[in-house]
Amino acid sequence: MLDITTQLTTNPKEKPAVDALGFGNYFTDHMFILDYTEGIGWHDGRIIPYQPISLDPSAMIFHYGQSVFEGLKAYVTVDNDILLFRPERNFARLNHSNDRLCIPKIDEEYALEALKQLVNVDREWVPNAPGTSLYIRPFIIATEEHLGVHPAKNYKFIIIMSPSGSYYKEGINPVKILVEQQFVRAVKGGTGEAKTGGNYASALKGQEIADREGYSQTLWLDGKENRYVEEVGSMNIFFKINGTVITPELNGSILPGITRDSMIQVLKSKNIPVEERRISIDEVVEAHHNGTLEEVFGTGTAAVISPVGELKYLEEKFTINKGEIGEVSQMLYDTLTGIQTGKVEDTFGWTIRL
Amino acid sequence: MLDITTQLTTNPKEKPAVDALGFGNYFTDHMFILDYTEGIGWHDGRIIPYQPISLDPSAMIFHYGQSVFEGLKAYVTVDNDILLFRPERNFARLNHSNDRLCIPKIDEEYALEALKQLVNVDREWVPNAPGTSLYIRPFIIATEEHLGVHPAKNYKFIIIMSPSGSYYKEGINPVKILVEQQFVRAVKGGTGEAKTGGNYASALKGQEIADREGYSQTLWLDGKENRYVEEVGSMNIFFKINGTVITPELNGSILPGITRDSMIQVLKSKNIPVEERRISIDEVVEAHHNGTLEEVFGTGTAAVISPVGELKYLEEKFTINKGEIGEVSQMLYDTLTGIQTGKVEDTFGWTIRL
Ligand SMILES: Cc1ncc(COP(=O)(O)O)c(C=O)c1O
Ligand SMILES: Cc1ncc(COP(=O)(O)O)c(C=O)c1O
Repeated sequence: MLDITTQLTTNPKEKPAVDALGFGNYFTDHMFILDYTEGIGWHDGRIIPYQPISLDPSAMIFHYGQSVFEGLKAYVTVDNDILLFRPERNFARLNHSNDRLCIPKIDEEYALEALKQLVNVDREWVPNAPGTSLYIRPFIIATEEHLGVHPAKNYKFIIIMSPSGSYYKEGINPVKILVEQQFVRAVKGGTGEAKTGGNYASALKGQEIADREGYSQTLWLDGKENRYVEEVGSMNIFFKINGTVITPELNGSILPGITRDSMIQVLKSKNIPVEERRISIDEVVEAHHNGTLEEVFGTGTAAVISPVGELKYLEEKFTINKGEIGEVSQMLYDTLTGIQTGKVEDTFGWTIRL
Repeated sequence: MLDITTQLTTNPKEKPAVDALGFGNYFTDHMFILDYTEGIGWHDGRIIPYQPISLDPSAMIFHYGQSVFEGLKAYVTVDNDILLFRPERNFARLNHSNDRLCIPKIDEEYALEALKQLVNVDREWVPNAPGTSLYIRPFIIATEEHLGVHPAKNYKFIIIMSPSGSYYKEGINPVKILVEQQFVRAVKGGTGEAKTGGNYASALKGQEIADREGYSQTLWLDGKENRYVEEVGSMNIFFKINGTVITPELNGSILPGITRDSMIQVLKSKNIPVEERRISIDEVVEAHHNGTLEEVFGTGTAAVISPVGELKYLEEKFTINKGEIGEVSQMLYDTLTGIQTGKVEDTFGWTIRL
């Protein structure tokens, strides 16, 4: 199983201009594939030229949504090394998602080794302009050719990679977010804490409403009481109220973000009070009304930090920190992106150098 | 758009023996495909030989679960005609699912025309042994090659067909079902009333638990209070209590089953009292304790009726109607399968003859 064969492309693609990158539009020259067959397990790990996947129309992924994925990044340092940020956490979370979706677990060490080899093969694809990175997408899909509803007998674990542009080309712009009232992303007992396609499909409708009203993201409340804050778009959320940073506790319906965990550790290391606990939208509104809501920000791999400048709940709109990025948000952004690109010393042991 | 081209296979497959059919294992010689391109709409409807689909690994269906599907059946009558059962309802429901999943709507009449042509091309594949049928699976998948989370710009609408065996080879055997306590299938505001992959992926874990305990299906309670009955496996559920047939009302988290709707109409036509309303698991338990729980059955395209012989809730097991199929269940089964196969007069206008 620990074998990985490599077949290099004979036809390398032209690399896109850094300004044209955007997010998730271009893919590198190679991909990694590992197959699962019931009775055999995971087998035939291979790096091959990036290419289409051919599946029978009855393949279960097309029907029953049995899929999981991950997202992480590789960065170029000033000395032209490549850094991976906490990749072992992504594979641990992938296995956690696998468990919820009844997908057989992968060997996390093997997956990490495969990832390292793949990034090495496509080293030239990691962009090095400020703010750019190589976005890495590991995912697993059910491929069994059968229409019965049951956990599939065959899967493919695939890693593809996409050079991505700077999220903040014109400086960090706080976003406007809309608290969703009608639709629900996830509920306790559902799949919210797993990174599986269905959660994202379910969230599209809220995003559509936010777009229509001129907001860039949806803030999701819990599915049971429609009262407790869960996440914002594809990010975890933090509130700084009266000097304390608060983020919803991991309750089963929230994705355990790796950026979230990293932020909590950075805050603790700087002796800034941080709490993981249930927080209702009423508490947030109340804090805004009494002037103690100091900062709001989302955290995730894509943007690292996304400060929230405006929040709309029911018919009320709140401007947060004058619509500017807050001090703590800025510090967290600088610290994390500094560690990720090798500019700030990694006292946490979070990076792997290739 | 109303054009459908047909390319016949030059290499027809051998048809499987009727006893080997099972469910969803074999596929006919042809399939229907219709493409969607943003700015153009749905286009290029075609019947082609059944064949693999080739997709870029970044195709959105592999990542964000944006997919919907349907399931219906074609039956052979005694005069060797083919009957479709309420197919227009499936395409209407598909569009309802499309709306929830932010997928562009299809033209329902066109889809029905495509289906008729496809079934005609593969007429020979509709099995005619008692209880057998041709299972039809229309589905839509997001095919845009992009890793951003947003409604896709490209889709494929596909219809495949699978000859399927008799569900009840050895007579109708009541099933044992387990009331799920820990996991949730759907919640109001989520995707429960849409027929989308994520709901089925989410339900696998409950099914795994049921299997382990020797039960064949999961009975799902509502996601908010864990108290009101929703569905059982891939079926709607009915309870006959003290002469009245009760089924959970369509509340946003339950799939609006076409069999469910048909059963309600048959019951009304026979003057059997039927109610669509909220029903708690406590009411069911109470009815069992006081001896008024007369019949329990699931309804769905696959089995038409699946009588429930045993129910387990918390630590208690209930045997229903001595573990036998009830009178009303049997009548409903006979009526519906009679109409579907042309043996009982279709006074409802539900069938389309090809
Ligand atoms: C729903 C959701 N919440 C939160 C996050 C943040 O997780 P991470 O910090 O690991 O990127 C993501 C993904 O990036 C997400 O998709
Ligand atoms: C979750 C679920 N509920 C109920 C049903 C029954 O619907 P229908 O009677 O239209 O087949 C199905 C599908 O067949 C289903 O998947």
